[in-house]
Amino acid sequence: MRYKATISYDGYNYMGFQIQHDLPTVELKLKEAIKKMLDVEVTIAASGRTDRYVHALNQVIHFDLERDINPNNLKRGINSFLPEDIYVKKIERVSDDFHARFSAKSKEYHYLINTLDYNPLTYKYMPYIHNLDIDKMDEAIKLFVGTHDFKGFASAQIDKRKDTVKTITEAKIIRYEDKLEFVFIGTGFLKYQVRRMMGLLIEIGLSKETKEKINLVLDKKDPKISHKVAPGVGLYLWKVNY
Amino acid sequence: MRYKATISYDGYNYMGFQIQHDLPTVELKLKEAIKKMLDVEVTIAASGRTDRYVHALNQVIHFDLERDINPNNLKRGINSFLPEDIYVKKIERVSDDFHARFSAKSKEYHYLINTLDYNPLTYKYMPYIHNLDIDKMDEAIKLFVGTHDFKGFASAQIDKRKDTVKTITEAKIIRYEDKLEFVFIGTGFLKYQVRRMMGLLIEIGLSKETKEKINLVLDKKDPKISHKVAPGVGLYLWKVNY
Repeated sequence: MRYKATISYDGYNYMGFQIQHDLPTVELKLKEAIKKMLDVEVTIAASGRTDRYVHALNQVIHFDLERDINPNNLKRGINSFLPEDIYVKKIERVSDDFHARFSAKSKEYHYLINTLDYNPLTYKYMPYIHNLDIDKMDEAIKLFVGTHDFKGFASAQIDKRKDTVKTITEAKIIRYEDKLEFVFIGTGFLKYQVRRMMGLLIEIGLSKETKEKINLVLDKKDPKISHKVAPGVGLYLWKVNY
Repeated sequence: MRYKATISYDGYNYMGFQIQHDLPTVELKLKEAIKKMLDVEVTIAASGRTDRYVHALNQVIHFDLERDINPNNLKRGINSFLPEDIYVKKIERVSDDFHARFSAKSKEYHYLINTLDYNPLTYKYMPYIHNLDIDKMDEAIKLFVGTHDFKGFASAQIDKRKDTVKTITEAKIIRYEDKLEFVFIGTGFLKYQVRRMMGLLIEIGLSKETKEKINLVLDKKDPKISHKVAPGVGLYLWKVNY
């Protein structure tokens, strides 16, 4: 029996999603909760990793169980063994050919920036950055849309055999009185890609770079050209579409 | 020289505002930061205490210094010695007859409830309560407006000599898609008063009590009649007016 679970978590207290021995990771907490509930060791496949500090509103995972368990009871049981900062929102039975990573059609990331004043209640959820020229960022963010080789925006340590050509179907900024919300929807994202695109966008907003730098990084495909990485705390894995 | 400071804090990690020996309190962190910056021990007067877990967006304090320090430099210096979850938003020089508590004309508290689904990113900032009948709460909250003896909504341990007659000038609910925001503005509030008014309002929203209970508690002036106390995490000292 394959189960698909949609989960949300506050990434601030974790070393990222993916298990790393016994360091605090979201995957470890999920495995431990399932173990405590059902006394089985499961293998978890996620739509993708999230880095240290990065949050998720709708991360998707799948795992297999020999038993046929009512999804609502499974949800309730796992939640009862999870810490308060990780939550299973939904569990569904899916066919055996569903795969959290390989079946994903597109992913949506949002990045939040507090533009008003430092806020001790939200600093774990959006970095405070002021004096941003939003019109400049609005023009620049459009350059990410389309099919590009994003190697220049990926981690420098990325596997050389990895396909770095990805399609971004939507990239926009939603303006609020006290914050900015950046939306990126695409077929897939490389390690650090959104944080590095945001890092350059912030430099453009601060008038330290111009939007032409985006095309240069896309052309040169060299991660060393633009090396700013926006803080993890502002990034949210918002949605995975299948 | 008297200085008025407006501060915000995430109350989740503190045992409340008021100093309690070396337990983690907001007042202790402020005193320590001023000590580290200026090497002086100051006495801090606040507009009022906040309980454990209760947040503040605009708590007001005052303290005296022998030195005449530029308020912006004082703000920057204190902030550099404060933990990330406490922040001095503004410092102003005020006359010696200003008092953070006694000069306050009115106070504004807000209470937030997440009504959508449990959220691991916001559980420290608004409790999740579902199935609330908002129309019933809307009718009930109006009964708090006016000048009343709020003894029945105060802590049972309140000092018997304390004046428990207070005036609430505004009490309303703002509805959002995913949350409710309760607003209370008044001349002053007793210990636990807002959380106990909210405790009864929630019971009314859950149809476990009717709005008549509010008048009963106001009439009988007995804190034992309505003993529910809403969780501290949803409460915010929003503003103090002078």
